[in-house]
This record gives sequence, C-alpha cells and structure tokens, in this order.
Amino acid sequence: MDDKTGPTDYANPGDRDLFLKAARENVTLGVDRLKKMMPQCAFGELGTCCILCYMGPCRIDPFDNGPKLGVCGASPDVIVARNFLRAATGGASSHAGHARELALLLHEIAEGKAPGYAVRDEAKLLSVAARLGIRTDGRTVNAVAGDVARKALEDFARQDGRPMNWIRARAPRKEYEKWERLGLLVSNAHNEIETAMHRTSMGNDADPQNLWVASLRMGMVDNFSGLMPATDLSDIIFGTPGPKVVSANYAVIKEGSVNIACHGHNPIMASKLAEWADKIEEEARGAGADGINVVGVCCIGNELATRFGAGYAGHLAQAELFLMTGAIDAMVVDMQCIWPGLVEIAKCHKTRFITTVPFVRNPDAIHVEFDPAMADDRAREILRHGIAAFKERKAAKVRVQIPDASAKMLTGISVEALVSVLSAVNAEDPLAPIVDALASGDILGAVGVVGCPNPKLRYTSMTERMAAELLRNNVLIVTTGCVNHILAQAGFLTGEGTLKYAGEKLKKVLTALGNAAGLGAPLPPVLHMGSCVDNSRIYDLLAALAGRIGIEISQLPVAGSAPEFITEKAISIGSFFLAAGILVHVAPPPRVFGSPFAIGLLTEKLPSITGGKVLVETDPSRAAAGILSHIRSKRQAQRLPLP
Amino acid sequence: MDDKTGPTDYANPGDRDLFLKAARENVTLGVDRLKKMMPQCAFGELGTCCILCYMGPCRIDPFDNGPKLGVCGASPDVIVARNFLRAATGGASSHAGHARELALLLHEIAEGKAPGYAVRDEAKLLSVAARLGIRTDGRTVNAVAGDVARKALEDFARQDGRPMNWIRARAPRKEYEKWERLGLLVSNAHNEIETAMHRTSMGNDADPQNLWVASLRMGMVDNFSGLMPATDLSDIIFGTPGPKVVSANYAVIKEGSVNIACHGHNPIMASKLAEWADKIEEEARGAGADGINVVGVCCIGNELATRFGAGYAGHLAQAELFLMTGAIDAMVVDMQCIWPGLVEIAKCHKTRFITTVPFVRNPDAIHVEFDPAMADDRAREILRHGIAAFKERKAAKVRVQIPDASAKMLTGISVEALVSVLSAVNAEDPLAPIVDALASGDILGAVGVVGCPNPKLRYTSMTERMAAELLRNNVLIVTTGCVNHILAQAGFLTGEGTLKYAGEKLKKVLTALGNAAGLGAPLPPVLHMGSCVDNSRIYDLLAALAGRIGIEISQLPVAGSAPEFITEKAISIGSFFLAAGILVHVAPPPRVFGSPFAIGLLTEKLPSITGGKVLVETDPSRAAAGILSHIRSKRQAQRLPLP
Repeated sequence: MDDKTGPTDYANPGDRDLFLKAARENVTLGVDRLKKMMPQCAFGELGTCCILCYMGPCRIDPFDNGPKLGVCGASPDVIVARNFLRAATGGASSHAGHARELALLLHEIAEGKAPGYAVRDEAKLLSVAARLGIRTDGRTVNAVAGDVARKALEDFARQDGRPMNWIRARAPRKEYEKWERLGLLVSNAHNEIETAMHRTSMGNDADPQNLWVASLRMGMVDNFSGLMPATDLSDIIFGTPGPKVVSANYAVIKEGSVNIACHGHNPIMASKLAEWADKIEEEARGAGADGINVVGVCCIGNELATRFGAGYAGHLAQAELFLMTGAIDAMVVDMQCIWPGLVEIAKCHKTRFITTVPFVRNPDAIHVEFDPAMADDRAREILRHGIAAFKERKAAKVRVQIPDASAKMLTGISVEALVSVLSAVNAEDPLAPIVDALASGDILGAVGVVGCPNPKLRYTSMTERMAAELLRNNVLIVTTGCVNHILAQAGFLTGEGTLKYAGEKLKKVLTALGNAAGLGAPLPPVLHMGSCVDNSRIYDLLAALAGRIGIEISQLPVAGSAPEFITEKAISIGSFFLAAGILVHVAPPPRVFGSPFAIGLLTEKLPSITGGKVLVETDPSRAAAGILSHIRSKRQAQRLPLP
Repeated sequence: MDDKTGPTDYANPGDRDLFLKAARENVTLGVDRLKKMMPQCAFGELGTCCILCYMGPCRIDPFDNGPKLGVCGASPDVIVARNFLRAATGGASSHAGHARELALLLHEIAEGKAPGYAVRDEAKLLSVAARLGIRTDGRTVNAVAGDVARKALEDFARQDGRPMNWIRARAPRKEYEKWERLGLLVSNAHNEIETAMHRTSMGNDADPQNLWVASLRMGMVDNFSGLMPATDLSDIIFGTPGPKVVSANYAVIKEGSVNIACHGHNPIMASKLAEWADKIEEEARGAGADGINVVGVCCIGNELATRFGAGYAGHLAQAELFLMTGAIDAMVVDMQCIWPGLVEIAKCHKTRFITTVPFVRNPDAIHVEFDPAMADDRAREILRHGIAAFKERKAAKVRVQIPDASAKMLTGISVEALVSVLSAVNAEDPLAPIVDALASGDILGAVGVVGCPNPKLRYTSMTERMAAELLRNNVLIVTTGCVNHILAQAGFLTGEGTLKYAGEKLKKVLTALGNAAGLGAPLPPVLHMGSCVDNSRIYDLLAALAGRIGIEISQLPVAGSAPEFITEKAISIGSFFLAAGILVHVAPPPRVFGSPFAIGLLTEKLPSITGGKVLVETDPSRAAAGILSHIRSKRQAQRLPLP
C-alpha cells in the first residue's frame, strides 16, 4: 500500500465521528449489515445462480463435481448472460423512467398544465430541437417544447423499427455507422425492455452471444432513452449548468436552520423545494429557525448543486450518517438509491422521512405524492413538515452532532460550460487547448470516474486512491454521480486539488486554462459534470473531442471507471460505454466470473468488435495501472508521444 | 396415497420406455439434471435471496441468528415482494411480446405487407372491433383489421393515463369498477413493465404492499396486453377454434414420414409449416417419405391441434423424449419453454434443431429467421431441412423407437364453440344448462387447471390425481397449456374420460349435453380451451357465467390451479386471477415463504380485497380438498345447495 495515498489520508473525519455516534446509540448502519452478511453467496457473486423458473433454483459451482447445467440445460454461460441482461434491464428501466417523467413534464409545460415549471433554457431547447429536426423558426417556445417532448415519448412508442429519435439526433456519425453494422440501433426503449425480460425467461434465448448483444443494446436504451434525454430535458426545464463554487460535506448542515435533505435523482421535486425554501422562510423564522436550508444527498445533491448552487451534502452511503447528525428535519426522497433502512434512523432523530413518488414508498414514511401539476402546493406542504419537525427537534432537544468537515468544489461543468470556459483561450476552436494537450501528452488521457460509494470498498478509499494515481500520471478526470461527493470531500474538485494531486504537466495545463479563463486559479483536476444521468455529458464531450480530431470515440486515449459501483444502473451505463468502444474499469467484480464465454467476450473479443473492454480490479493502484496501460496503448495506436 | 389414483395408473408407458432408452444411450435429461441439482437453495426457494445490487448478494435465513435485513436495510418482506414482481414481469413481458407480435402481423396484413396471412375469421374481427368501439359498417376487412391492430399497439404506447383499450373493451363492468377502486386499471403495458423493473431496483420501493399491488397490476398487464389480445388476434388471423377430435401422445409420430415437431407458442410460424406440409408433400415423397407430418409440442401443440387438427405430440417436459424417439427430423421452435438442453439430444439423432425468432437462439442450432413478410419462403426452407434430415436419418439408420402410446382428445372448446354446442340445448340462453347445473349442484363448481409439467412433481402424477379427485366430486375442469397434454394422454379429454372419472351427477350432465349436442357421447369432463395464452378464454367464460347470473366473478364457485407450474408466465397469469378474485392453487410452493407479509396478504387479506386467494399444496388429494372446500364456501355464500 502506498503510504501517500493510504486510506487514512482520505477518510472523512465526519464519517468516523458519526459511525462512533451510531455505535454509541446502538443504531445499525449499512456497514454493520454488510459485516453480518459475510460471507456472501459465491454462486450469486459468480452469476451462476438462476431463479428464472420453478424447476430451479439452480446453481453451478465451476469448481466442484456438482451439476454443470441447470435443470433446463442452461449452461453457466447462458445463466450469467441472462442474469447480467436482467440487471442491465433494471438499470436502463430506471433511467428510462427518469427521462420519461421529464418528457411528460415538458409536455405538460408546453400544454400549460404545469404552472410551476417553465422552459428556463431556450437556447438548449432550440439546440435539442434542431438536432431532432424540429422546425423552430417563428414558433413559440411552448410549441417547440411540445414537439421535443413528443419526440422523446415517441422513442417509447414507435413500432416501425426505425432507430430512436435520440440516437439519430445525438449519435456521432462514426458511432452511428458502427452500431448500425453491429445491430445495436435500438428502435423503441420499451420494446427492448419487454424483449429482454422475455428472452431471459425460461426456455428462450440460449445463445450467450445473442444475450450479450442484448445487454449492449440495453446500454443503448440506457443512454439514448435515459441519460441523454434526461440531461437534455432537465437542461431545458431547469437550465443548463454553468460553473459555480459550492460548499460540500457535513458543514452544509446548519444547526439553527430547518434542514431539508433531498435524496434521490430527479430535479422535478427537489428544484421546487429549493425554490420554496426562500419563499416561506418567514414561516421557518416564526418557528425559531434561522431559515430553511435545502441540501442534496446522492445524485439530487449533484442536481441541486450544479443547477442551483445548493449545499452538496453527501453520497448515498452517507445518507445514514447525515441522519445520524440529528439535525436533519426532513429527508425528502424521490427515487433510486434510497436505502429502506434510512427510515429507522430518521425515526430515532425526529426526522420526518417523506416519500414523494408513487412507486417508491416505505410503510414507515410520510407520503406526499408530488404531482408536478400541483408542484407549488406540494413543495410548501413538504417544507412545512420540515418546519414542524424543526420545532419538535428543538422541543425534544434531540442531540445534534454536526461534524466540522467542510469542502468547496467547482461544479457546473456541462459541455456547454466547458466550451465556454475554453473559448476564453481559443474562441474559434474552443476544444483546441484540450486536443493540443492530449496530442502533446501534457494531458496523457482522460478518465470518467463515476458511480457509487460501495461499503465493500469504501474503507479502502478505493476511489480517492485510484483518482490520485491517475492524476499523478497527468490523466484528467471527469466525474458524475456520488463519486463527486467522495472526491469533493477529499478536496479533488478545487484548484488546490490540482496543486496537490496533478502531475507536473497536467498541473501546467490546468493552471494555464484556469488563468486564461479568468478563474484566478487552476481548473480542478477533477471536473464535476453532474449527476449519474449526466454520464451523457461525458459521452457528449468524448463525441466532441473525437469529432474535432476526426477519429472514432474508441480511438481516444480515454477510459471509464466505476470503482465502487453498487447499482444495476451502473451495469447498464457500463454496457453503453462498452458499446461506445470505451475501456470500462469496474469494482467490485461484476457477476460474470462463472462464465468463460463472458470473460473471453468482455476482455478479448469485444475490443475488436466495438472497441470496448472490461477491466476488473479492486486494488486502486492496479486499477490505475490497468487504465494507464490502456491509455498508453490508445496513444500508441494514434502515434501520439508516450511521455 | 389413494391407490386408484396412484402414479402408476397415469404414468405414460411411452415416457418410461424413452427414459430407459436415454439411460441406455447415456443421454442426460432434465430429470437427471434435477436430481443432480438437489438439494436446491433454500434461500432461493424462500424468496429471500437478493441480487439486485452489488452490495449483495444478500440472503436472509428466517430460522437462524444471521442477518435479518439486506445491506440496504431491505426486509425479507421487501426482498420477496421485489423478486416476485420481477418474476411476474418476466411472465407478463413474455405474453405481451406474444400479443404484440400478433398485433404487428395483423397490421401488416391490413397494409397488404404479409401476403402469407389473411383475416380468416371476419366474425371474430367484427366482434372484437365492436368491443373496441371501432366503426365497422361499410368498411373493408383490412380497414377494420388495421384499426384493431392499432388499438392493440396503442396499449403499449399511450402516455395519457387512460386505461388500456383492452381493459375497457373486455373487462366486465363489475370487475372494471372493482379494479378502478383498487387502482389496478393499467394504462400502458410497457410503462408498467419499465416501472416494475425500476421500482425493484436498489433503493426504490420498500413498501411490501405497494410492491404486491404492482404484481397484481402486472397480472392485469399479462391478461389485458398479453393473453386476451393474443387470443383475439390469433382467432382473427387463424380462425376461432371449433370442436374437433385429434390424436395425441407418441403415436402421432409416423416413422415413415418427415416428422416436424413444432415447439413453442405463437401460431405465426407453425401455422405456415402445417400449411406447407401439404403443398410440398411431393418433395418428401421424392425423398422416400410417406409425407410430411407436422406435430406440436408444448403450447404450439395446443395451437396446432385446436386450430388445425394437427397431431398433439407432448408437453414441454416430453420435448426431450420426442427427440429420444430418433424419429423427429426437425424440431422447429419459436419462443418460450424451449429447454437449451434439447439441442444436444437433437444432435445425437440427426434431428435438425431450427430456431426462428431473433431473441431465441442457440449456438448449436440452425437459425432460419421467420419474417412473416416472407412466411411462405421460410416455411418451405424449414420443411426442406426436415426432408434433408429425413434422408440423413434413413441413410444413417438412426435407431428409432416410437412408443405405442396413443390417445384421442376433443379440442377446440373456445367460448364461442362452447356457446354454439350449448345452443343445441337452449338456443335462447345457451349458458342456461351450465348455470342450472351449477345452481342445482349437479356441477358442484369448475376449476381451470393450467400450466406445466414440473419434473419436481411429475413423478407423483400430481395433475392427473388432483383432476381425478375434483371430477369425482362433480367439479368440471377446463384446461389450457401443457396440462392438456398430461390429461389427454391419461384419457381425460374424451367422453370415455367422463364415464371413467366424473362423479355421478357430473356424468349425467355431460352425457345429456353430449347427446343434446349430437356428439353421440358425453362431453369430456375436461374441456380443452387452448394454449397458455387462452387462459383468456377461461376468463371470458367466467365473465360470461358471472354476467349471466348477475354476480361478480369472485362469487362464482370456481378456482384456478397450476398444479405443476414452472414458468414466470404462471406467476403473472396467477397474479391476474388473484386480481380477478379467484382462488389460485399452485405447486410447487411459490417463493414467498420467507415473507410473513406475503403469506398474510395472499392467504388472509386478499380475499377481502379482490376476492383472490392463494392455496399452496403439493399433495394432489389435499390440493383437491382445499379447492373443494373453497368451492363449497362460495356455494354457501350464494346460498346454493351443498350436495
């Protein structure tokens, strides 16, 4: 273990304090449950357990003399591929649902049925409309918005076999042609989801390769009916993020305020809480509070920070710890990554736990269904729960312990914002500084580090140590999702982070860019591009760079990494990046090791098909080494210098 | 064990002979693999294993001191409900896919793009159109057909929240109102599938009740976007079945013929093989064969028998044994219930194994993609594979052993056909004889016995023994799916079956009906209503009976039973019948016993909500007793005599 990057350097003292508080108060946390769950089922970890019919459950141990086939005759290659596809389907369905909700909202806005919302970013609307081939001249904003929404919904409805609107509008030409050749141009996200569930049911697809192609197609669903429209439509409705510096870590909680922690993913609800927090501040004052403090946990933290500059609380595994502070008056959740165990901790601290989405409920929570048509009323209702809880907290003298842990971060680096920053250097060709630095080797390559904080790896500071190693080697990092919380709290998302972590060459580039852009400081070495769904922005950036250079995305000296992934969403996002031709590093190990076919495909065959490749590595130094080696080989193939 | 209904009475001697042949030839079958898989994973069987995120796999043992919650805090109640919903989603997606394919075909027919097909049953088209509110007067068949197809596809596309067309068109008023009250009126099958996958992914729905409601809604998807449109559209395209007597069991194979065994579910492909078998018979004669003999295995056996009178080969677990005869030249499959292990057995016997659907492949099979637009060409191509294989079989002198096991059965008992038969008794009020017999107790009640032959229970002759017990108690049985093969082979689907198995009162009723209908024999005590998707017909019959009496379906003295179920489709069908207010008996045990909530809901609470109830019982006598007790209680509630 490298001392300089050892876990203690990164461990958040706030986390430690609250773990101790939980232990003192006999509150059980996820880490405790994980410990108790050990050892975990090896069949499940290998992917060779099958519960898809009632002749099973079947399970194959590759190492003993037991059965080598399921009752139906399914091989481990088939079982693993089916399980993986179902996981990818769970992930893509989540993102599709996220985007579809936004499409429906934009449609309501266009029809004048969602008075609490409007098109905030007309420029983005026009640019998305133009890409979709929607006529814009002389038309009202709402007319164009209605067409954009309908085009989005059409990708869940068409039965004519034509590729999805969002693929046709947003895929770069080279990738489009590759996907067409490989049969990856999905037509209808919902057909694909239905067929994936169908083909994985007993007695359907028994061809591992066919099933893996379906997983790549599910990746296409994830990106083109999930991530990309989610980002595009959110930008249109809530505004495209621009650079801003926000506060992160436990210090964003203010003991004297009504603290509202939003947890989840979709800005539809949380944006209204942020808006109404100001509007009814007087009510909070009346209750003895300094005001209403809306902060974001998990991806809604990214959304609130990057779009509205709100306090950037913590990642999904810290949601428990924020509740442990005793200072959260309401935890308001929408969807995804809301651990069921949170409600118990909320109860111990007089925190009102409020669910808002009909398909994400908890029997011990307060449910306020957030109908966008009644957004203002609902936002007020929710905040008033917080105010009432604040009074109770004060009356009950709930023991509050807010760790003195604070950080700043630069956020809001959408592709549009980045281009605008870089225009300060070269207005004609904004990407030139990056392309030149990549060409010279001053930037060796770039890695999208994304995903979750997995309690299985969190104690090793897997993400921070891998990121430090990459930066030391002059690799630029862009991030989305909860990884942002991890790295922001460890100081990676500031100009000081550049001085501390970046290799000499990268430091020079980022300093020059920061100065040219008038920031008065280096650009951070880790660029915050948004929430999970904003992996679309990373893809857009790659597309722009590859397009500028005139190569395929798979030829760029770049990689993706989900160093502590948890969710099925990571499986489907990863599947997309494999389809796009990117090296995808993951930890913990994906559940494919029971299948020789999967291992061969993902590590050996796929690179010559899509260009994608999977790297599995749980050690941060070795993970960084594997990624660096890949970046170097891509540079070599492009005859770029290998400094 | 009751000697009269002991397993040896029902065991198919043909099965036994071929099991012995397989043993002699060292061919491994499903039963062998099942034996090797024992003991099966108890976590899986209890439903308390969770692989929905990468903090897991988690598993809860309710009987030890291990963890009681997953890492995220999910309780066994949540884990079980999520797993169950995913299974129901797999099943409903399969049926939705089946129906959607037919809707697309009908659309192509209407547009003149599928020259191999036509609307065969205009009366059915007009009746379905009328129920959907489609204008029919003065319009061409194709114009109406196009509208019907579009209405079917609309149920996968609408985003306006209105209930599905098929629910509005086909649900009886009393049930519609109940479902409206309970929030079970689904709007869009695909939205529902997406949301089910989303809500079961990590950190979403943590409310067991909400998740179970979603499973009931998935049942609605299964019936109203799967079963019902599948039956309606198949009837329109291939003709509504009418009564016919067909041959069943191994004797349908003819050694001297080119034997084509169709296996799967959708008549689109198999119907064309049946058609072209006659047209190119000369080619087969030229190869030295007596002709081409197309027979059906699994549900396509039901479709081919009930619609075209083709030989009714065997159930899904016999597909292996039919290959073991050595006399099958081509096994041609479309989708669902195609065990991956079949290809190995086919290889041993020079049988060409041909897949035809893009999402159901096998690396060792020949793939002939069956595009309906090219149906005739593809059908010829497939049959020629059979002819070529026949020549090889003869040349290689493949050892053939066709057991001397034969049976007859009456099939084609669609609701339309039943009403037509009963009209011979009472033309004004065709259902009167059944309603009167139910009222008097001559028919004590009726049970839909459906589903699969599960190797776990097959050796106990679970289905035959339970059916015999019900019949002895004057309960009429209607069937769909592979249960038909089981019961046909045991002689239940003939007038002689009535004489042998029916109680005295039921015998009298069936004899009178058979005579009145001019059959010259009693009606069989088990009425063959079609394939799995034709559970819609059972529901239609229940709706007609309840409507005629003026009560809710849940008040009828009836039940459903899947005594040896295997597939996720059974889970979603069962969920629908629970929503419809029916007692559903199942074996083997569903994976819910790890959840006290599920047990309470399915056995105690649900009866007072929808009227539905689950009965789990693997012993045939006790299963029959439980069903009889339910029927008696329903009679009691209606103040009907309890003979």
